[in-house]
Amino acid sequence: MSEQPATSPDPQSQLDDIHAVNPDFVRDVRTLLDREAADGVRRLVLPLHAADIADLVDLLPRDERTTLLDCLGDDLDPEVLTEVEESVLVDLLPELAPSALARAVTELDTDDGVYLVDHLDEDRREEILRAVPAPDRTAVQEALDFPEDSAGRLMQRDFIAVPAYWTVGQVIDYCRDTADLPDEFYGIFVIDPRYRPIGHVPLNRILRTRRPVVVRQIMEEEAQLIPLEMDQEEVAFLFQQYDLASAPVVDEYGRLAGAITFDDVADVIEEEAEEDLLRLGGVAGESDLYATVMRTTRTRFTWLLVNLGTAIAASLVIALFDATIDRLVALAILMPIVASMGGNAGTQTLTVAVRALATHELTATNAMRIVVKEVLVGGLNGILFAVLMGLIAALWFGDPMLGGVIAAAMVINLLVAGLFGTLIPLGCQRLGVDPAIAASVFLTPVTDVIGFFAFLGLAALVLI
Amino acid sequence: MSEQPATSPDPQSQLDDIHAVNPDFVRDVRTLLDREAADGVRRLVLPLHAADIADLVDLLPRDERTTLLDCLGDDLDPEVLTEVEESVLVDLLPELAPSALARAVTELDTDDGVYLVDHLDEDRREEILRAVPAPDRTAVQEALDFPEDSAGRLMQRDFIAVPAYWTVGQVIDYCRDTADLPDEFYGIFVIDPRYRPIGHVPLNRILRTRRPVVVRQIMEEEAQLIPLEMDQEEVAFLFQQYDLASAPVVDEYGRLAGAITFDDVADVIEEEAEEDLLRLGGVAGESDLYATVMRTTRTRFTWLLVNLGTAIAASLVIALFDATIDRLVALAILMPIVASMGGNAGTQTLTVAVRALATHELTATNAMRIVVKEVLVGGLNGILFAVLMGLIAALWFGDPMLGGVIAAAMVINLLVAGLFGTLIPLGCQRLGVDPAIAASVFLTPVTDVIGFFAFLGLAALVLI
Repeated sequence: MSEQPATSPDPQSQLDDIHAVNPDFVRDVRTLLDREAADGVRRLVLPLHAADIADLVDLLPRDERTTLLDCLGDDLDPEVLTEVEESVLVDLLPELAPSALARAVTELDTDDGVYLVDHLDEDRREEILRAVPAPDRTAVQEALDFPEDSAGRLMQRDFIAVPAYWTVGQVIDYCRDTADLPDEFYGIFVIDPRYRPIGHVPLNRILRTRRPVVVRQIMEEEAQLIPLEMDQEEVAFLFQQYDLASAPVVDEYGRLAGAITFDDVADVIEEEAEEDLLRLGGVAGESDLYATVMRTTRTRFTWLLVNLGTAIAASLVIALFDATIDRLVALAILMPIVASMGGNAGTQTLTVAVRALATHELTATNAMRIVVKEVLVGGLNGILFAVLMGLIAALWFGDPMLGGVIAAAMVINLLVAGLFGTLIPLGCQRLGVDPAIAASVFLTPVTDVIGFFAFLGLAALVLI
Repeated sequence: MSEQPATSPDPQSQLDDIHAVNPDFVRDVRTLLDREAADGVRRLVLPLHAADIADLVDLLPRDERTTLLDCLGDDLDPEVLTEVEESVLVDLLPELAPSALARAVTELDTDDGVYLVDHLDEDRREEILRAVPAPDRTAVQEALDFPEDSAGRLMQRDFIAVPAYWTVGQVIDYCRDTADLPDEFYGIFVIDPRYRPIGHVPLNRILRTRRPVVVRQIMEEEAQLIPLEMDQEEVAFLFQQYDLASAPVVDEYGRLAGAITFDDVADVIEEEAEEDLLRLGGVAGESDLYATVMRTTRTRFTWLLVNLGTAIAASLVIALFDATIDRLVALAILMPIVASMGGNAGTQTLTVAVRALATHELTATNAMRIVVKEVLVGGLNGILFAVLMGLIAALWFGDPMLGGVIAAAMVINLLVAGLFGTLIPLGCQRLGVDPAIAASVFLTPVTDVIGFFAFLGLAALVLI
């Protein structure tokens, strides 16, 4: 037993608090991997849930990830591959045997299989798909034809559809007698003779209804049909707005092509909220923590380059007033305060507007009202901070006029922040540009330029 | 028919594209409200889904919201009240008759009823709860005893629990014969004689199994028990990590107390992601678009006040070097660029770190590795931008030494941004302070102060 550390193999006790594989556990696994004690590794890792094994894989250094997968061999649950971080998957795929990948694609749900295949390069994709049995292969190939992030990609091709004249008894018998049902389903679809969805029945309603009752009597009419090409963000919106558990996806003729369930959508909801967050933080497109230093540097470089451009633009405004600063160095000391307050007030407004656009709370109907509100909020806070900062500046430099100038610049810049903090994202949205990315590129230069210009310009007029 | 506008009453056609009540529709409703044409309003509005009616209520000006609810009267689906924005609800509650509220609390699911009652002031709460029938009242009162955002608040008290020795047939008969089942359920819980959950069976498994089979044979062992006091953020993590459809909530003795289902959790997932976004944007605690100008101004004021403090701190650093700036005004022109690049690079790192902490991807196990990675990324981008900005500054002011100084300051500040962009959120997390709020308060002053200090300090040493 020398090769097994003191950690209990009970999955629960291996979790730090409620979640995630904890540092001790990772250390134990690494010790065993280092000693090439495959049996010990398997005893520790295999009882874990696929999502936890995936976390473990993420946490291991690069070379040990492959060693771990080799240890687990064919007992590796293919789900693990769909749960690891994207950059980790891209790293691992070339190391996996074609047979293992073909098995994974076959065993996984269509959407997960597609996710794996989508991350293979063209040549390997062909090779591996050839090794997948025909029905699964066709399903994957068809799904790949739909654009990424579309309903066609997201949907399951396995679902249960029955005609409206069936009885509850027939449905139950059908479910009992059919071997090839989907792994999990939460309701059944009701279709017309042309295979168009006309309603659905949640499973609990089938369970509480007596056998002779006809499906038509207990079905809910289908309100939300999802076209194959609908963007997943729209799909997520419909699920949230109408609290859907599942919804039918239809082709161009209105025929039932697949089903999307809440669990597919939960990931989308988080992804989309995360996307906004990362875009506002200037890290759009950064896949995850485990991307290489080179790749991360490259993704961030672009954003910083744009920022360099806008910072230089603001500096050009300062350069216009170099003679003024030369005569009164207090201006150089105070000017970042005006710009910073404008930038922060603008970011506040922008954040609220971007989020409200994403959740469809900010629309053409209330846009005008919200712009007016934000300008009022900017103006009010502008006045408050004008008084405060005016007093501070007047006392600091013993110059009441300087206090007046910074106060006026503060009001102007916070009004501008409120106005452009809403107008810019609304404009981006109208132009079809993502507000979360574009808006902060445009907003900071506006508040910087206006901040410096108002403060230094007023100073040049009044003080010098 | 003069009172009915040309809009079709078909709910689908009233949606702009797929979602939200569109500007034309809102205009039509407002025209009818203005003409006091209650019948027309009802014809237009009542066919809509509760979530869409809620959107309409949000979009109306304040006084018209009450008029609309008066028009709808007792036909108003109480769900609408749970779907309107929080600040709109707070506005509406005093306008609603106690009988209407008592009816709403009675008809709604416990968690939704609690949400309404929670927004009433103490006196009215008593009055309205007295008008709610006993079982619903007790359920609401018990739920109110749990802390906000806890599993006890989130859970449903209606669920189906059966002993393991029951057959599938018994379960089906029980569901058919019991009138008072939950509105929706996705699985049944299996309990031991002491009412502790030992497993669960998804409904689809009951449906595909023959009547004589015993529940124990088809149940999945319960892996995730949720304590009543668990925070909803942890609950959401478990649901996402293990793709749960529902999970049992247990009291201190391990007895089944309630059930949480995916639809309760979907809202939490979005809420939590939104919270991080708003906190990073400096608008923590801002409830929604419809908060009054005064309230919004107050929420934002606090954050801006903190920012004013840190901006003044950075100005104090500049003031240290006023003599240096006085001799070389180019420093005043260039210094915001160094600070701005540091601030942006820091925000990038911070955003990634805050998100990774929230999703439990960044933990004690990999913290060190991620800090090193971020410092490397900061260093690499620091070098790239040092070269670029060094050349620009040297050419702009015809002073190669000035270029050298800004280059050195750039490398220093981007290294610092990478280091503190990870260390600060990790430190916040360890101290139990929310990284999304605290981190940006601390980060910007660090990159500002270091940026100004490095640039002006080096300039003072080398150039003057």
